[in-house]
Amino acid sequence: MVGGGQLARMTHQAAAGLAVRLRILAASAGDSAAQVCPDVQVGDHRSLDELREFAAACDVLTFDHEHVPGAHVAALERAGVVVRPGYEALRHAQDKLAMRERLAALGLACPLYRAVRTVDDVRNFAIQNGWPVVLKAVRGGYDGRGVWVCGSPAEAADVLGHGIALLVEEHVGFQRELAALVARSPHGQGAAFAVVETVQRDGVCQEVLAPAPGLDPDRAAGIQALALRVAAELGVSGLLAVELFETAAGLLVNELAMRPHNSGHWTIEGARTSQFEQHLRAVLDLPLGAPQLAAPKVAMANVFGGDGGDTFARCAHVMAADPGAKVHLYGKAPRPGRKIGHVTVLGDAGEDMTRLRDRAVRAATYLRWGQEGSGTRPTHPGASAY
Amino acid sequence: MVGGGQLARMTHQAAAGLAVRLRILAASAGDSAAQVCPDVQVGDHRSLDELREFAAACDVLTFDHEHVPGAHVAALERAGVVVRPGYEALRHAQDKLAMRERLAALGLACPLYRAVRTVDDVRNFAIQNGWPVVLKAVRGGYDGRGVWVCGSPAEAADVLGHGIALLVEEHVGFQRELAALVARSPHGQGAAFAVVETVQRDGVCQEVLAPAPGLDPDRAAGIQALALRVAAELGVSGLLAVELFETAAGLLVNELAMRPHNSGHWTIEGARTSQFEQHLRAVLDLPLGAPQLAAPKVAMANVFGGDGGDTFARCAHVMAADPGAKVHLYGKAPRPGRKIGHVTVLGDAGEDMTRLRDRAVRAATYLRWGQEGSGTRPTHPGASAY
Repeated sequence: MVGGGQLARMTHQAAAGLAVRLRILAASAGDSAAQVCPDVQVGDHRSLDELREFAAACDVLTFDHEHVPGAHVAALERAGVVVRPGYEALRHAQDKLAMRERLAALGLACPLYRAVRTVDDVRNFAIQNGWPVVLKAVRGGYDGRGVWVCGSPAEAADVLGHGIALLVEEHVGFQRELAALVARSPHGQGAAFAVVETVQRDGVCQEVLAPAPGLDPDRAAGIQALALRVAAELGVSGLLAVELFETAAGLLVNELAMRPHNSGHWTIEGARTSQFEQHLRAVLDLPLGAPQLAAPKVAMANVFGGDGGDTFARCAHVMAADPGAKVHLYGKAPRPGRKIGHVTVLGDAGEDMTRLRDRAVRAATYLRWGQEGSGTRPTHPGASAY
Repeated sequence: MVGGGQLARMTHQAAAGLAVRLRILAASAGDSAAQVCPDVQVGDHRSLDELREFAAACDVLTFDHEHVPGAHVAALERAGVVVRPGYEALRHAQDKLAMRERLAALGLACPLYRAVRTVDDVRNFAIQNGWPVVLKAVRGGYDGRGVWVCGSPAEAADVLGHGIALLVEEHVGFQRELAALVARSPHGQGAAFAVVETVQRDGVCQEVLAPAPGLDPDRAAGIQALALRVAAELGVSGLLAVELFETAAGLLVNELAMRPHNSGHWTIEGARTSQFEQHLRAVLDLPLGAPQLAAPKVAMANVFGGDGGDTFARCAHVMAADPGAKVHLYGKAPRPGRKIGHVTVLGDAGEDMTRLRDRAVRAATYLRWGQEGSGTRPTHPGASAY
């Protein structure tokens, strides 16, 4: 697995159960996954030579992120390396323009979009579709960001000034965001996890609710079918996450990812097969595991770095307050805003999803700040002391 | 954790989730846990010097087996090492005579027993209690065995010939075997998993059924209370497994273990908190996790080495035949009879436990032999081809 982040870390936990020897290409020996895995090559995923050396010791190459240059992926495949997902699929997760064009060709509804090079391009798009608009980096991003909401030509000019390839999209007035996570094996088998609701703030996923509350079962099945179809049409081997906007007019596909995904962390306890085991099964062309829910309701909240306090010490408090909360820490320094863990809570069919969310969010907030009520989520009347 | 077997391997999987850095003292670099954990000291757990060196890099010392000499455990504690469970508790799991005497002093029903040194000692015991009798090594064993069922003085003489300390016990005509797994923290908190039925053959656990089918709820609660009481009385920090015989006349305590236990592997998927996470929480004096069942019925079957075939290749067949079966492989060479993995299957409340057992056993049998019907479990009418 190329990349040593938390996705590789959790994949290693799953790999150990299947006696799959996971080898990791990490940027540093202190990377999240490198802390827990004995077979680590420290190297640069942007170097074809280092990728070649790494791949030589692997049966199958897969990814914890999208940042390996597409040309390198294609070169490895030409050299006979088994890469899953392969370049022809992966480029749709690496290149947002290729993704939009392909989804459009498949007849799937997406936000209106256009490749742009100048402020006039953006202004012309906005004349038709209104301000604000969304500018997106076609590949990668700039300074860690890849999405900018722009309310004026001046704001768009700032983004264009970064000198990266961009596309503009309409700013969708969605009701909520949904995500569908499916797996597909080279053999052609597919499996779909429950469709979830993702709760984002400032473009960052905060919470995941599984299954998406109140989602019509037919619509949920339709979304799963859509994701499985995209996986098949694009030739994905491994996981495919499809992020969607639910709007009054219907569904729009927002993003694709071809790896374990934050919207699927809940599956570790909440599904019969975790997304990490499922990704391994898929890329190794093993039969896929049962994706069914292991509990009727699941809520997941991400843990972010806050005041730099001792996250592990805070675990004791969270564990005492909520013995059923499942805490996952990634071994990462708690820099402000950095994703350093997540908390999952399971509920029965009769459980109130608001209560379940509160449990997950309050545990995550405590791990972040060491106290109740100073998280980024507004406190709400009636919340008891933690 | 001293010992690099599958218990340490699965503990490492749980430790990664809590950002607990597990360090392992393994007998060899190829040990089950050493394959998946980056922080391994290869050394001899019978050497006090090597234990000291190992412990110097740990905050807390715990165990994957009972084979560290008690005198070494006591010496480490005197030197200030935090050992959990400590010598005063652990000796009851290492020394069967100490265990029997302590349980008797607590007024807990056990098989009749007596320390023996000669054939006459055994014969006199058998005159009162009948043949066959059970001879047990007080500590460790001989040639990998620690229990011998003897039907005559001649058979007893063979065992006595090994020159190890022995005790004799009555051969209990039990209805079935049960096990209670509890955790206790230094803080004094206790938590009990569901009482399970263990199915043994030739003294080796084959299957575990959770909760124990048909067990009266009051009796189950009584067994949990018994195990929690033993953990408290003996001052256990960590897990305590209590193995019991269910007889027509009541319950008898058979064995104690103070570590993650084969009878608790089902908790990885079948309980809200796995025994491995629970052991870590307990020995680190963190609040204990919710021990409740995650599914109404759970069956676990051990996988043993069989014909030496490729276990991983056989996974594909098992995964295709039963997508809900959770396969755990330990990375061990499949030597005949060696425990190399386990399979867990979860069922709804309405699920027939016989069917659930069949799923687990058939998966385990296939992994062992590569075919149906040649496992050690007698095939039964109506079992369909796998």
